[in-house]
Amino acid sequence: MIKRPMHGGNLNWAAKIAGCPPSMLLDFSASINPLGPPKSAINAIEKGLRGLEHYPDPNYPELRLTLGNWHDLPPEWILPGNGAAELLTWGGRELAALDAVYVLSPGFRDYKRALDAFGAKIISCPLDVAKRSQNSLLEKDLKLDAPITSNCGLLLNNPHNPTGQLFSRREILPYLEQFALVVIDEAFMDFLRPDAQESLIEDVKNYPNLVVLRSMTKFYTLPGLRIGYAVAHPQRLKRWEKWRDPWSVNSLAAVAAVAVVADTEFQEKTWQWLESARSKFYQDLLTIPGLSPIPSAANFFLVATDIPASQLQTQLLKQSQILIRDCLSFPELGENYFRIAIRYPEENQKLINQLTINL
Amino acid sequence: MIKRPMHGGNLNWAAKIAGCPPSMLLDFSASINPLGPPKSAINAIEKGLRGLEHYPDPNYPELRLTLGNWHDLPPEWILPGNGAAELLTWGGRELAALDAVYVLSPGFRDYKRALDAFGAKIISCPLDVAKRSQNSLLEKDLKLDAPITSNCGLLLNNPHNPTGQLFSRREILPYLEQFALVVIDEAFMDFLRPDAQESLIEDVKNYPNLVVLRSMTKFYTLPGLRIGYAVAHPQRLKRWEKWRDPWSVNSLAAVAAVAVVADTEFQEKTWQWLESARSKFYQDLLTIPGLSPIPSAANFFLVATDIPASQLQTQLLKQSQILIRDCLSFPELGENYFRIAIRYPEENQKLINQLTINL
Repeated sequence: MIKRPMHGGNLNWAAKIAGCPPSMLLDFSASINPLGPPKSAINAIEKGLRGLEHYPDPNYPELRLTLGNWHDLPPEWILPGNGAAELLTWGGRELAALDAVYVLSPGFRDYKRALDAFGAKIISCPLDVAKRSQNSLLEKDLKLDAPITSNCGLLLNNPHNPTGQLFSRREILPYLEQFALVVIDEAFMDFLRPDAQESLIEDVKNYPNLVVLRSMTKFYTLPGLRIGYAVAHPQRLKRWEKWRDPWSVNSLAAVAAVAVVADTEFQEKTWQWLESARSKFYQDLLTIPGLSPIPSAANFFLVATDIPASQLQTQLLKQSQILIRDCLSFPELGENYFRIAIRYPEENQKLINQLTINL
Repeated sequence: MIKRPMHGGNLNWAAKIAGCPPSMLLDFSASINPLGPPKSAINAIEKGLRGLEHYPDPNYPELRLTLGNWHDLPPEWILPGNGAAELLTWGGRELAALDAVYVLSPGFRDYKRALDAFGAKIISCPLDVAKRSQNSLLEKDLKLDAPITSNCGLLLNNPHNPTGQLFSRREILPYLEQFALVVIDEAFMDFLRPDAQESLIEDVKNYPNLVVLRSMTKFYTLPGLRIGYAVAHPQRLKRWEKWRDPWSVNSLAAVAAVAVVADTEFQEKTWQWLESARSKFYQDLLTIPGLSPIPSAANFFLVATDIPASQLQTQLLKQSQILIRDCLSFPELGENYFRIAIRYPEENQKLINQLTINL
C-alpha cells in the first residue's frame, strides 16, 4: 500500500492505481504548462553539462542581471532560489517571527510547512469558494480582516491556488500599510500576458516590507530542475543569503533560466494556447451536470463536484489513466472539489468525455 | 573591482586577474576530482532531461533505496539534499539549539554560516596545524576539551578540510558519549578506499545523536549539480524534511546519483589516480624550499609557505593562469598557507614548476 500523496504530480502512486507506467498517465494534477520545456531551456542545459565540474558562482551574477533587467530592477533586488519553495522557507522564517501570519484558506499546503517550520501563529482567512463557483466572473476583490496587531504578516497567493482567482494590485496595496511583512507568491502570474498581470514587483522599491516570489517551474515546464526567485529589498535578500547555503541554485537551472527569459516565442505561444484552451475547457466543464468550475486567471480550474473527488479520481485513473487532483491537501474544501490543469485541447476534450461518462 | 571570493572555485574573479576566460584557468582551488564527471552521470542526466516536466517525488524513493543499500541501511536513514551544504543548514539549526557548538579551527567557512544562521554559540577548538606540517605522518588523533555542559554539540570534518587530516573512527566514538549531538561532515571520505575509510555511518544505528553528511559533488565532479545526503536516525531526518521544501533535490541530480553509486569502474580509477598522484605531488612539494606540505588523506594539500599566499596566488594567475586557494576563508591560518587540489600528474607538475620559479 503506497501512501496517498498530498501534492499533485506524485505519479508513482497514481500509476499503481491506473496499472500503467507513470509515463503513460495523462496528468491533470500538476499545474504545469504542457507546451514545454522550451527548446531554449533544453539547449542551454545540454550546453551547461560541460560546466557541471565547477561550483556555481554564489552571487549568480548573470542570472540576477537577466532577471533584474526583465523586471527593470538592479540585480541585488533579485534572489534566485532552488525553486520558489526554497525561498518560501526563508519567507516563512521571517513571517514566523511576527505576532501572527494571515493566510488565505484554502491555500497551497507548502505555506503551512514553511510557517510551521519556524513556529508561526497562523490565522486563516477563509475565501468564499462556493460563492466564487457560482459566479461566472473572475473576482478581483480581496477582503481581509484587519490584523490583530501592527506586527503581523500576510502570505498571499496571486493568482490564487487552487481557485485561480486573480486579486488586483490595487486591492492588495492597502494591506502593505497594515501588515509588517507581506509575502506574495506569484507562481502563476507568468501565465497572464504582461498587460493583464497584477504583479506587485514594481512596488518592492516603495515597500521594504514586500516580498514577491516567482516560480519558473510552471510556466516553463521545468519542475524537475528547481528554479524560482524572490524580489525584495536587497537588505532582506542579503539576510536570506546568510541563512541558506551559498550554491542553492544548480548551474543547469541557472543557465536554463537565463535562456527562457529571452524566449519570447515560447511565451507568446503559451499565452495564445492558454487563452483559447481555457475558454473552451471552461465552457465544456459548464455543460457537465454535477460540475461547477470556477473561472480562472491561471492555467488550472478548481471544480466543485457532486460526487466525491477521490472516487472520481480513482474512476478516471482506472478507466482512462487520467490523473486529476483531489483536494486532500486543501482540507477546508472537503471531498467535493477537484483541481485540473489546462492541457492541449485534445487532452482537455478527453477529460471532458470521461467526466461526462462518470457524472 | 570584483570582490575577492571567500570560497575556492569562484573562477570569474580569478579569470579577470589572469586575463583569460574562466575556462582557460588551471583550477587547483576547488577540491574536485579531475577525472569526472563520470560518463555514467552524464548519460543519466541526458536521459533524465525527459523527466524535467515532472516534479521529483518528494520521498526520492529510488535514490534513498540506492544510497541505503550502498551503506547497508534502510532508506529512511538517508536524506538526500541539495548538496551537503543544504543539509548542513538543518544540522546547524539543531546544533544551534544546544548550549554551545564545538568546531575545529581552521574549518570550512560554511560551518560558521550554518551555525550563525540560527544563533549558535561557537567554541573554537584549534588544531595545531604548524605541528602537523612538520610531521611526515598522517595523524589520526583528535584531542578536544570536554564540553562545558552535557548539552553541547560537535561539528567535525573528517577527513579535515583544509588540512587533509584523517581522524580515526575509534578516536571520535568517545565524543558521542560526551556531546548531545555530533555532526560529522564526511564530504571527502569517498576519496579513501572503503577499507581505509574512517566513516561513522555504521554507527548511526547505535547513536541517535549522530549525523553523518556526505557530498557527491567532489568525488564525482558534479559541484554544479548539487547533491549530497545525510545519514541519521529517521526521526531526525523526518524533522528536517518538515523544515525544508519538498523538492529540494532536482531530478537530474537524483538520477545522476543513482548512476554513479553503481559506477565502480570510475571509483576504482579515482582511487588509483589519487594514490599515485598524491604521493608524487607530496614528494615534489617537499623538495621546494620555503614550502611545507601537510600529509593528506584527501584529494588536496594544505601547504605552509614562506611568502604570502595571496602574493603567490596573484603571481601564478598572471604568469600561468594557475589558480591556487589562498586561505582567507580560514582566517586562523593567516597569510602563510595555501590549499591545492590534486589533479592529473602533468598538471601537478606544471604547478610544481611554477612554484619552483616563484620560491
